[in-house]
Amino acid sequence: MSPPKCLDLFSNNTRGDKLYCESWRFTVETNSAGNWDLVPKSCVDFVEKYMTCGQYLSDLEAVSYNSLQFAKSLKLDDGDGGKDVWIFDIDETLLSNAPFFAAYGWGSEPYEEETWIEWQEEGLQPALPASLNLYKELQQLGFNLILLSGRYEYQRNSTDKNLQLMGYTNWGKLILRDPSEADTPATIYKSQKRKELEDEGYKIWGSSGDQWSDLMGFSLAKRSFKLPNLMYYVA
Amino acid sequence: MSPPKCLDLFSNNTRGDKLYCESWRFTVETNSAGNWDLVPKSCVDFVEKYMTCGQYLSDLEAVSYNSLQFAKSLKLDDGDGGKDVWIFDIDETLLSNAPFFAAYGWGSEPYEEETWIEWQEEGLQPALPASLNLYKELQQLGFNLILLSGRYEYQRNSTDKNLQLMGYTNWGKLILRDPSEADTPATIYKSQKRKELEDEGYKIWGSSGDQWSDLMGFSLAKRSFKLPNLMYYVA
Repeated sequence: MSPPKCLDLFSNNTRGDKLYCESWRFTVETNSAGNWDLVPKSCVDFVEKYMTCGQYLSDLEAVSYNSLQFAKSLKLDDGDGGKDVWIFDIDETLLSNAPFFAAYGWGSEPYEEETWIEWQEEGLQPALPASLNLYKELQQLGFNLILLSGRYEYQRNSTDKNLQLMGYTNWGKLILRDPSEADTPATIYKSQKRKELEDEGYKIWGSSGDQWSDLMGFSLAKRSFKLPNLMYYVA
Repeated sequence: MSPPKCLDLFSNNTRGDKLYCESWRFTVETNSAGNWDLVPKSCVDFVEKYMTCGQYLSDLEAVSYNSLQFAKSLKLDDGDGGKDVWIFDIDETLLSNAPFFAAYGWGSEPYEEETWIEWQEEGLQPALPASLNLYKELQQLGFNLILLSGRYEYQRNSTDKNLQLMGYTNWGKLILRDPSEADTPATIYKSQKRKELEDEGYKIWGSSGDQWSDLMGFSLAKRSFKLPNLMYYVA
């Protein structure tokens, strides 16, 4: 007997929850949801399964594949002093906070920024494997990799160590948030930093980030690549 | 006995296909895939199920809900002569071509533009229910609805009739593509038309479209809402 055609709409959740959570995911990942707060309680199981049953890693691989295809299609100048740039965000782009969010209902429970920064200070966040591969491949292709994060300057030391521990090396710049920029919305902060890079003569070919604030605003990369993030939104 | 935790990763397809097709969907809907051509053969069943088992309609409802929430949060001027605008694309935004694509392997088989236009000339494309609701709600809120489509001027009569037949009435403008604009990429064409609206004093609050070319470029709406489309890509 063949299974019902729509079997995979069912899961631990009711069919209604599954439909709802899949649609919630759609609106989050395409930014229709805008500045959302917490993962809906009825979608905690859904997010946990998304994160731990393979789909998250598969989605990351697919985005890395697209990114690399684009990168390979470009003709970079030789001997240009590293002006051909690819920008990476850090959290949920190069490094994962999934172990942290697993302890906070996968984003369904409020958390303290202090605890979040303490966790990051430990410097043991795992690399996202597809991103590490992409990072290395882009370096081989001759891109100057610039890391642009909303983390604060005082986190530079632990961030640097964590990245290197997980295999990320030889980046061009690591741009972190100055205390004076603490209240600047992420979209503006990141756009301003890209604008400064442009003004210094860098050509921003690609940008990889899990937040819409990485990918919107001004001085955009020629192509921007959205990595999945169902755990939190940064405005 | 409780079902395995990851049951819903299985379906008619193998687990590998399901992971792959879900990730393909992610890259298509977030535009990492860029200018893709045909639905992969291994994802035809996946797309058919997506379109016909409820998820597509549910996703459309979720996006409409987000759109309406945003619209309700705005304070429109009264007596401004209809300068408060919401832009709608037509195909896969107000009207559906799903019956057409069902005959072409849900986007996995090449089709003739002539046949596609003949189908549209019949003027019997169904409304997308969530979009029709949003359309009516936005009119109630006082928005001037402007329809901006990549369809050609010579399709005006059939397009007009089809829209009205399905319940879409009293739009402000129906902007179609002039023969001279046949070779303009959709992103540029739509940006230029939005720019013209801005220059005429219209304020573009929201924009609803299934293509990234509806939502990127210049003279963007204050918020743009991405509707799902796994069947084709318009560059």
